[in-house]
Amino acid sequence: MTRVGERMGVVTLVGAGPGDAGLVTVAGRDAIATADVILTDRLVPRAALAWARSDAEIIDVAKVPGGRSTDQAEINRLLIEHAKAGNDVVRFKGGDPFVFGRGGEELVACADAGIETRVIPGVSSAFAVPAIAGIPLTHRGLVQAFTVVSGHVPPGHPASTVDWTALARSGSTLVVMMGVRTLPAIADALVDGGLDPATPAVVVADGTLPSQLVVRADVATIAAAAQEAGVGPPAVTVIGEVAALDLVEHGE
Amino acid sequence: MTRVGERMGVVTLVGAGPGDAGLVTVAGRDAIATADVILTDRLVPRAALAWARSDAEIIDVAKVPGGRSTDQAEINRLLIEHAKAGNDVVRFKGGDPFVFGRGGEELVACADAGIETRVIPGVSSAFAVPAIAGIPLTHRGLVQAFTVVSGHVPPGHPASTVDWTALARSGSTLVVMMGVRTLPAIADALVDGGLDPATPAVVVADGTLPSQLVVRADVATIAAAAQEAGVGPPAVTVIGEVAALDLVEHGE
Repeated sequence: MTRVGERMGVVTLVGAGPGDAGLVTVAGRDAIATADVILTDRLVPRAALAWARSDAEIIDVAKVPGGRSTDQAEINRLLIEHAKAGNDVVRFKGGDPFVFGRGGEELVACADAGIETRVIPGVSSAFAVPAIAGIPLTHRGLVQAFTVVSGHVPPGHPASTVDWTALARSGSTLVVMMGVRTLPAIADALVDGGLDPATPAVVVADGTLPSQLVVRADVATIAAAAQEAGVGPPAVTVIGEVAALDLVEHGE
Repeated sequence: MTRVGERMGVVTLVGAGPGDAGLVTVAGRDAIATADVILTDRLVPRAALAWARSDAEIIDVAKVPGGRSTDQAEINRLLIEHAKAGNDVVRFKGGDPFVFGRGGEELVACADAGIETRVIPGVSSAFAVPAIAGIPLTHRGLVQAFTVVSGHVPPGHPASTVDWTALARSGSTLVVMMGVRTLPAIADALVDGGLDPATPAVVVADGTLPSQLVVRADVATIAAAAQEAGVGPPAVTVIGEVAALDLVEHGE
């Protein structure tokens, strides 16, 4: 059902979290349960869509790598069109909408069209995937900072704004997102930048899902170890002393 | 009601998020709703405790700065004692349990006692507070990394493991947590380390709550601006080009 009226709808950006539907927030679930229109992604937990009203319109704008793709401009157009028609729209985005997620661009497009927007943040994979695997990003007395970096734009890429040598020397835990393919170049850049090759590293693939896979090595060998284990996206890599920890007691 | 039996309970660490009860996860709410015993913090949303069973035992282990404090060893002892008595225990922690939150230490203590532990991550203030205020930590073409750093251990502190000069040069957005008191020293260290004094900066106090306060300046003047505005903890400071953005259209 789409409503027609003079009132414009609100566009609410809801972060879906790393994959498990239980990691959607209570406010996110409420927004899904009351929305007129929901635009979803490839990475959202399908179980969460069962919370939608039976008469809600669900539009899949999944951008499958190498497959069918919906242009970002088309997504923006759909958000604006449905809100202008008086519908409350949820943009349900997998991963981290405001971290490497283009959520910002969608909000700007809606705001430019005069549409009221809201943000319901999600659990970030950058924190949650390591946490569930028993790896804290900081640890008292060990490290007081962590850096989350996109592997999508690797060292040496003309669009890169990151100084990898400075990161290697920063003393912060490094968390690499979307870096399965570029991990060899990233690890090399860090070691070249002065990071001890024996620094612990861990790759967590399919984090929070039943297929979760954890590969541990040091920064000098983590890329080879991940490849050998057959790691594919999505994966989160943690590099730093905390990567050697496993704080969760998994039971018998 | 506490159960007595041969089965040991499970200790589940639940992240409460930045303050709004709606930002607790669905899985976190379910854990609270089924727990026999809940150990809470000062910073958890009180509304979330209404989800607990009427016969659940709720223990407040709040550590008010400068006030009443429950020793960390005593918290660990309570978690272990109740789990050993066969109770499912939720440790409901405000803020980010695995980020500067000592959640790691509590899990280690339980694991050492042979108790099964689980982690349900929360929404991190480091991401969510800026997001709700309209500030993305990364933005396509602008910045591909961000660093979250504790202001609790400022530049020059003997326990600091952070190289602030490297951070100033890293090209990543900086997010300072727990840094209201130490913000002058942090801003000075960054500018001394080579960060452009005109770099945008924003302080968000009481993020996600009705009392939310946003103060914008540049890194050279943000500490004075925050003081003048009467900012107190909890506050999140963002330093970098993204700090000049406001992507949320707040309506009329």
